[in-house]
Amino acid sequence: MRMYDLIQKKKEGLALATNEINYFVQGYMDDQIPDYQASALLMAIYFCGLNERETTDLTMAICNSGEQVDLSAIPGVKVDKHSTGGVGDKTTLVLIPLVAAAGLPVAKMSGRGLGHTGGTVDKLESIPGFQVALDSEQFISQVRRIGAAVVAQTNLLAPADKKLYALRDVTATVDSIPLIASSIMSKKIASGADAIVLDVKVGSGAFMPDQQRAIKLARTMVDIGNQAGRRTAALVTNMDQPLGLAVGNALEVQEAIDTLRGQGPGDLLEICLELGAIMLLLAGKVADLQVGRGELLNLLKNGRALNKLEELIMAQGGDPRVVRQDGLLPAAEFTRAVPAPSTGYIRGINATAIGRSAMLLGAGRENMESVIDPSAGIVLQKKVGDPVEAGATLALLHANSTEGLEQVAAYVGQAYQIGFVRPRPVQLILGTVPVELSVPG
Amino acid sequence: MRMYDLIQKKKEGLALATNEINYFVQGYMDDQIPDYQASALLMAIYFCGLNERETTDLTMAICNSGEQVDLSAIPGVKVDKHSTGGVGDKTTLVLIPLVAAAGLPVAKMSGRGLGHTGGTVDKLESIPGFQVALDSEQFISQVRRIGAAVVAQTNLLAPADKKLYALRDVTATVDSIPLIASSIMSKKIASGADAIVLDVKVGSGAFMPDQQRAIKLARTMVDIGNQAGRRTAALVTNMDQPLGLAVGNALEVQEAIDTLRGQGPGDLLEICLELGAIMLLLAGKVADLQVGRGELLNLLKNGRALNKLEELIMAQGGDPRVVRQDGLLPAAEFTRAVPAPSTGYIRGINATAIGRSAMLLGAGRENMESVIDPSAGIVLQKKVGDPVEAGATLALLHANSTEGLEQVAAYVGQAYQIGFVRPRPVQLILGTVPVELSVPG
Repeated sequence: MRMYDLIQKKKEGLALATNEINYFVQGYMDDQIPDYQASALLMAIYFCGLNERETTDLTMAICNSGEQVDLSAIPGVKVDKHSTGGVGDKTTLVLIPLVAAAGLPVAKMSGRGLGHTGGTVDKLESIPGFQVALDSEQFISQVRRIGAAVVAQTNLLAPADKKLYALRDVTATVDSIPLIASSIMSKKIASGADAIVLDVKVGSGAFMPDQQRAIKLARTMVDIGNQAGRRTAALVTNMDQPLGLAVGNALEVQEAIDTLRGQGPGDLLEICLELGAIMLLLAGKVADLQVGRGELLNLLKNGRALNKLEELIMAQGGDPRVVRQDGLLPAAEFTRAVPAPSTGYIRGINATAIGRSAMLLGAGRENMESVIDPSAGIVLQKKVGDPVEAGATLALLHANSTEGLEQVAAYVGQAYQIGFVRPRPVQLILGTVPVELSVPG
Repeated sequence: MRMYDLIQKKKEGLALATNEINYFVQGYMDDQIPDYQASALLMAIYFCGLNERETTDLTMAICNSGEQVDLSAIPGVKVDKHSTGGVGDKTTLVLIPLVAAAGLPVAKMSGRGLGHTGGTVDKLESIPGFQVALDSEQFISQVRRIGAAVVAQTNLLAPADKKLYALRDVTATVDSIPLIASSIMSKKIASGADAIVLDVKVGSGAFMPDQQRAIKLARTMVDIGNQAGRRTAALVTNMDQPLGLAVGNALEVQEAIDTLRGQGPGDLLEICLELGAIMLLLAGKVADLQVGRGELLNLLKNGRALNKLEELIMAQGGDPRVVRQDGLLPAAEFTRAVPAPSTGYIRGINATAIGRSAMLLGAGRENMESVIDPSAGIVLQKKVGDPVEAGATLALLHANSTEGLEQVAAYVGQAYQIGFVRPRPVQLILGTVPVELSVPG
């Protein structure tokens, strides 16, 4: 087999055979296939696509390039959840204790990575004492004992994804749906869950601004998951403005706690209930989504979800008092209000600008060497549709330095679009895959 | 400027600016741009193309990566000729003395390269004593003295073409019209001629089997030449069967001599007259092609073209007697006739199979280490349209070893397609660019 022939074949729009895709991924990992041939193939894939079978083959080849987590020692259906990433997305922080309280075993591996804020493990690390470095025995035994554990994802899962992504990142071949889908799903499948729920974000604050493409990505990923024998479903959700109010690590942990207390923002609660209900449905715990939502609402009301978070924090060495007592999470030295320049209605919030601002304040990593400031970030006071008077606070910045704070304040101010006409209500959930998952009404 | 942005831009179908194309070629030559980014851009160009301005910019950037030949010391309009390559194409061997006899200064640089036979310089080297290693002073003074000189092309011309071609060759990005056109034209422009005539071969024996694409390639190259201030024209010619009868180095020199004696095959003569007339036209020597053809025919009849070849061979150290006396060119030890398996008409000859057979006999280079056998090759006895009886000779193989000769004979036999129905006459000249060059009738 010759890599040249694979490039030529794909370039002509033909499908690659399973053994050809395996040859590519293995050969690239073994340094038998040079970067320049790999990048030529990736660009040909960008233009010609991959069919469903090829996409699954690529996913499995990437998955098979590394270790696969064996969760079989944990009884029950293990359901994983993945978000394609958005600004202020702390749904995982809410969902872990919520679905664990509903009896679903949660064995969560989560990445760090670059972004507006840290990943789920970075956020949890803002809780004093919280440890995410569990070995696989500790991880599994904790899930068996209390029903939930969170661990930092190792580099041993799907190493081919890391190498391929690094090449795509410098050759403008990131934005290909089959390549995105296989990248995400290879890691999810390697993580060992029996079922997978995907939250595909679409809008100005997501890497996928176009709803049509987001739905296509969701379908592609659901197909891959099902082909790989994992019950898979996806939600396509709006990311035209940040989710909830908080953007930042400790700030988002606080908002997740508030949500588990029944005092969280409506949009965050709504997405958590929808994703959580799908998780219960895929696990066979409930017969339909309405019942699932009802059960989850009960667990919020009766405090069991909050208790589960307390239990999780305690098990992983964190200070469990953060759950009930304010002021124990790291807090920034300075806060700065961003005032509204005029009176009217909030017509839009540029989520990317808010995310970028949070990163500038120290909440996220600009590169792998960046150190996250757990207390830094932004708390929005106004969201799309809210009326506002000139001079009222739009958002509160949290930072440990006043350097550059004024510029960030100006940038956040500009992220808000204010007008005289009240905008249409935001549609939060744009679609589900498969469609039959939709909650009626 | 970042190479990533150039890839992204081209991938989106946008045009690259002149300074972006220069940045790419210079950066790639300086090893500032890695192969994997260059191959990604080349693949994006394969899919999205280059507009006329971009193609000219790329050509000039490649041209400017190396030396440019200065022919200004030679009086008159210097016209170069280039063929995209076909089996049995010895037109340059005929045209050099023919147009030089008509008063056009011929300062010919020619490559070696891989192929069915050697290049023009390899063919001329089959004349005992012929030297192609002239320095630039010798080269120019010989053209001034006798009107013609042939020299092996150095690696100093358009080195970026060599580096880019090597990358295209292993990343399946050779077959892109703007990339082919800029590769050819960069070297032609660097070679210093004032005017350029292109012979674009199309058919089973050419690298471009499709007439539409061949015409597009011709147009693209003519546009580049004109943009670069060189009067340029192109002929698109049939390469569905070998040109003339001989395929091999000394064998082709002999056929060129025969043609200059007025005893060459009709198809070869026809293409030489057409290309030669265009050269005279571009040089301003004649007002139209008919007059040019008449003048060239005269030079064949009155022996001046043959005399010019004799003069050229003498000037470059070769044995000039080859021009009038048979048996002085290297001859192979063995000949083997390929018999017709059945009676009928020759309906087709697979030119690629004939070329490949000649290479197997030793006439061409399979790789850069191969040594050419000047005497080896094939002389066809039958061409398309000829009637043939079973057992009659289709072609004569010339070789210095009987090893593998039988297999080659079988391969050549299979290259011939024999049927009961006489085929339509072959149309040799399929088009000209610009169209107004066409000879009426």
